[in-house]
Amino acid sequence: MRKIKAISYGVGNIGRDIARFMVDKGVIITGAIDLRNVGQDLGDVIGSGRKLNVQISDNADEVLAKTSADIALIAVATAMEKIYPHVKRCLEAGLNVITTSEEASYAWTSSPAIAAKLDQIAKENGVTVTGSGMQDVFWVNLITALTGASHRIESVEGRAMINMDELGPMVAEFYAVGRKADDIYAMIERKEKLPLGDEVVCLRMDLENQIAGLGLTTKSITESVRPIILDHDLPCKAFNRIIPAGDVTGLDNTIVIETAEGILFQATQTAKVYEPGEYDINEWLIRGTPTIHLRNDRPPTLLGTSSQIVNRIPDVINARPGYVTIDELPKLVCKVRSLEHYLTS
Amino acid sequence: MRKIKAISYGVGNIGRDIARFMVDKGVIITGAIDLRNVGQDLGDVIGSGRKLNVQISDNADEVLAKTSADIALIAVATAMEKIYPHVKRCLEAGLNVITTSEEASYAWTSSPAIAAKLDQIAKENGVTVTGSGMQDVFWVNLITALTGASHRIESVEGRAMINMDELGPMVAEFYAVGRKADDIYAMIERKEKLPLGDEVVCLRMDLENQIAGLGLTTKSITESVRPIILDHDLPCKAFNRIIPAGDVTGLDNTIVIETAEGILFQATQTAKVYEPGEYDINEWLIRGTPTIHLRNDRPPTLLGTSSQIVNRIPDVINARPGYVTIDELPKLVCKVRSLEHYLTS
Repeated sequence: MRKIKAISYGVGNIGRDIARFMVDKGVIITGAIDLRNVGQDLGDVIGSGRKLNVQISDNADEVLAKTSADIALIAVATAMEKIYPHVKRCLEAGLNVITTSEEASYAWTSSPAIAAKLDQIAKENGVTVTGSGMQDVFWVNLITALTGASHRIESVEGRAMINMDELGPMVAEFYAVGRKADDIYAMIERKEKLPLGDEVVCLRMDLENQIAGLGLTTKSITESVRPIILDHDLPCKAFNRIIPAGDVTGLDNTIVIETAEGILFQATQTAKVYEPGEYDINEWLIRGTPTIHLRNDRPPTLLGTSSQIVNRIPDVINARPGYVTIDELPKLVCKVRSLEHYLTS
Repeated sequence: MRKIKAISYGVGNIGRDIARFMVDKGVIITGAIDLRNVGQDLGDVIGSGRKLNVQISDNADEVLAKTSADIALIAVATAMEKIYPHVKRCLEAGLNVITTSEEASYAWTSSPAIAAKLDQIAKENGVTVTGSGMQDVFWVNLITALTGASHRIESVEGRAMINMDELGPMVAEFYAVGRKADDIYAMIERKEKLPLGDEVVCLRMDLENQIAGLGLTTKSITESVRPIILDHDLPCKAFNRIIPAGDVTGLDNTIVIETAEGILFQATQTAKVYEPGEYDINEWLIRGTPTIHLRNDRPPTLLGTSSQIVNRIPDVINARPGYVTIDELPKLVCKVRSLEHYLTS
């Protein structure tokens, strides 16, 4: 049985875990692409304790031209517009692709032209492109699995909480941490985009994935943002300062999707600097007959992204050609053995 | 598109909900079998508010001989030995079967001869037999879905709690409620079977289903029982009396399964008379990289059994012939439309 060969495309925080997990599950990494650590051995950069004899290169076209592989793992950006050129060149080189891009997990309505173009390029090259990550288990497949116990669904309601103090100052800035409340209210009044970076509010894609997985049809999508403001000072590690009472400590992003079938999907992502004792939460309520409640405390937001993507590798190689969203892929379970054992051909 | 036709085989508490849900999802019930309410219209017995023009009969062979259907929903007993003749005659009549039998959800090791025989009869008749119910979502598929976020698993540990005070005096007797502690300790010493009825401890089957779903191999199965004894009196609705301090109020059943791959599966089912403020719990911990925790409070134990079985109807009609366990079936999701829309042929 031949081993799976992969290219590590993006070797940042998430890309390093993906590469470590791939090596541990018997994947041969044949190329590594990043703008940082150019010329260094991938084994050193991911802390695997041994050389992998793969030098990190900043010349993606050259790596793809001279390297054979089954799949590229792309961890470079969130928005479809930003990942498009990277995905395109991998598909054209005949590689399957899994990207960590949150938007790619369901881009059919948010970036329809790019999604259709990638679908076409993938089909022309007989390969598959998928967006996966933390959402695959915790915000999509766990929830659709829960609906298996529903006779009638009135609404699906979710709540996810992430700590802006753990993701560095750039992400904290995206989420308006430390800004004046009046400025943020004025931006919301003017309908300016929040968060402030290219971050896509991932729960929208997740709800669309759930809707597709249940065979339903989206009728309308409403997004709204609310700044989170405390009546007391809060220390912020990301900026190494105190956020004074009355300033913004994060954002609540709420997505409401009405379906043609009358079932309401709604989720709020709270991204803020935590107060003492707060921790990540993933909580869902499916109202209907019967009503069902689920809660994950402290979901593994960072490691879980990498583990889910690596578990998806054989599923994506096995999948039909084209842009395939995770609702269409098989049950995602832990791949206990070397990944080549899960290939169907 | 032709409607799905079904036979309601067993019209007790669970069978009535199954029939109601089938009618609501566009299934035509063509026959009903039970020893109670013989001659009554099924619509009256299930409280559907209208006649269904199907009279309940206690003559299963006659119903099967003169009634055409795609599938039989069998809700008559828990143990494979008890359901065998009922399942056999439905398969021989050319019907697919879903049974509520907990043991049927994975009988390959607990009743291998019966499982193999049903597999053979089903294949000879080109139909499928499956055991489903509450375990499909809450004790099997939700847990294997969670493992999709595991890179490495050390152990899977579960805990389910059910209230003996809600399931009537017969089930409470099975679980030794109200017995003298010394009698139960003596039975455990003599390795006598507990619970006392034909109840199969369902979590064993669920762990075996999970193990099969992950492609692992069972090495050893250990079952143990512990009586639950309080230091204070407890009112018991099922028997309409007070259980005095020191007597048994229920049982903890613990199953430990070692796999050849070194991953440990362990679950405890607590079946007892609840104290004030207690409620059903479904809680799982997957230890490993990363460690993942999930909790459902107040899972819908009764309605959920029926909703899951009815959602499985198209999956089972679509499945390959033979005895098929739920780990092999597709992702179970809520079937929002009339069930015939989910048939693949």
